[in-house]
Amino acid sequence: MNDVSSPRDLRRAIRSGAHLGNTSGLAPGYVQCNIVILPAAVAADFLRFCQLNPKPCPLIATSNAPGDFTLPPLGDVDIRTDVPSYRLFRDGEFVEELADITALWQDDLVTFALGCSFSFEEALLADGLEVRNVTEQVNVPMYRTSIDCSPAGPFAGKMVVSMRPFKAADAIRAVQICTRFPAVHGAPVHLGDPGLIGIGDLALPDYGDPVNVAADELPVFWACGVTPQVALERARLPFAITHSPGCMLVTDLRNSRLAVM
Amino acid sequence: MNDVSSPRDLRRAIRSGAHLGNTSGLAPGYVQCNIVILPAAVAADFLRFCQLNPKPCPLIATSNAPGDFTLPPLGDVDIRTDVPSYRLFRDGEFVEELADITALWQDDLVTFALGCSFSFEEALLADGLEVRNVTEQVNVPMYRTSIDCSPAGPFAGKMVVSMRPFKAADAIRAVQICTRFPAVHGAPVHLGDPGLIGIGDLALPDYGDPVNVAADELPVFWACGVTPQVALERARLPFAITHSPGCMLVTDLRNSRLAVM
Repeated sequence: MNDVSSPRDLRRAIRSGAHLGNTSGLAPGYVQCNIVILPAAVAADFLRFCQLNPKPCPLIATSNAPGDFTLPPLGDVDIRTDVPSYRLFRDGEFVEELADITALWQDDLVTFALGCSFSFEEALLADGLEVRNVTEQVNVPMYRTSIDCSPAGPFAGKMVVSMRPFKAADAIRAVQICTRFPAVHGAPVHLGDPGLIGIGDLALPDYGDPVNVAADELPVFWACGVTPQVALERARLPFAITHSPGCMLVTDLRNSRLAVM
Repeated sequence: MNDVSSPRDLRRAIRSGAHLGNTSGLAPGYVQCNIVILPAAVAADFLRFCQLNPKPCPLIATSNAPGDFTLPPLGDVDIRTDVPSYRLFRDGEFVEELADITALWQDDLVTFALGCSFSFEEALLADGLEVRNVTEQVNVPMYRTSIDCSPAGPFAGKMVVSMRPFKAADAIRAVQICTRFPAVHGAPVHLGDPGLIGIGDLALPDYGDPVNVAADELPVFWACGVTPQVALERARLPFAITHSPGCMLVTDLRNSRLAVM
């Protein structure tokens, strides 16, 4: 039995195959990351896509050089083994889920670690706010919007957002809290009328599960880490690897260290 | 002709009677204050009311001692002469407007200078946001709400709020900007459905003028400096003096110095 409160021990358990599931709620207090692994030929364009779209694609770390499977700023990471579940894409199509990508590793692969909403949800909960998807024990609802990302090379598409409902005063507090954390999607991008950003029905999310929204609550929308996955699929790259949804890279970086003030 | 860009020169013009009108837009960059002048017997309760209700009553300065008509932290102020127009209340009833209260001054009077929305409106405008009441050149609409203030001695009542409409992304930005300025009402207290805070019809403000709200905009509500005036009237004090609406004390304090970060 591993101690899943330590990010290092949790990574060891994942590396050995002892932990294959999602990482939600594990190693509390530590940053978890969305992972994108691409050939060097398109890495510069993807990096530029992240820089142009920092709210959906908040870049926390990249590998030092093509082929390097470590990520020193995030801990003693071996990115070939330390994510519980990977998704392999060929020619833009999902091929399979894998617990280990050592056999697929190439000398030209570059890793991107992007901030994840788990960090700001922890900050909201720590402030006493209720996070509906946590309360209802479901995956957060996510929606494709009409908001265009800024394109870079083959990477483009609409922004995907996650939604959490709050009473107005709590929505204002959530803006304050999340503003401190630009590295994990930052402040919300929209609140109120979903139709204004191209969302037809809150009860029908494009990803994740619907949650209840009370009559005295506003839906609050954050830029979501699924955005780069959509951009990746759209780019129809010959080869790409991501984490599986909810199965994140757990890092040694404390959430509190991401606060800009 | 006085230079109304300098707060000191503007106060001189007001002191001499050369400027009697409202101070909106004058001495840009400098803090303007709501003024409440009370007998020492109720000053401690009013101070506590401000401390309990910092959003509607953000206290910036008080006089050093009863009877002292200076406010050194705010400049070379003589509070008996340096406000363009005062309102005298006796037994909670408005008696008259005055350009000078020297003849009414008493040895037991205590002055309270409270932050004013002019400062955060300037910060919103400087960030490129449109402030509707400024665009439409009217007084901001203000509404009595169902939100109770925390009572202190004879001071109690409902919170009054001001309203400015914004598109959602600008409303989120406005929360970020105003959070930096707790001394001038700080972040909004509500946004979205006015009925949730007891406002029946945005087109019928209790004070000020209505403004247009577009279909794709949210009304955003800030705690308002009229709140202490309502508490004062309700307290039915034998004697009280305030500034006249829009005719503020102009101070030497820069708006930027109020920013907490």
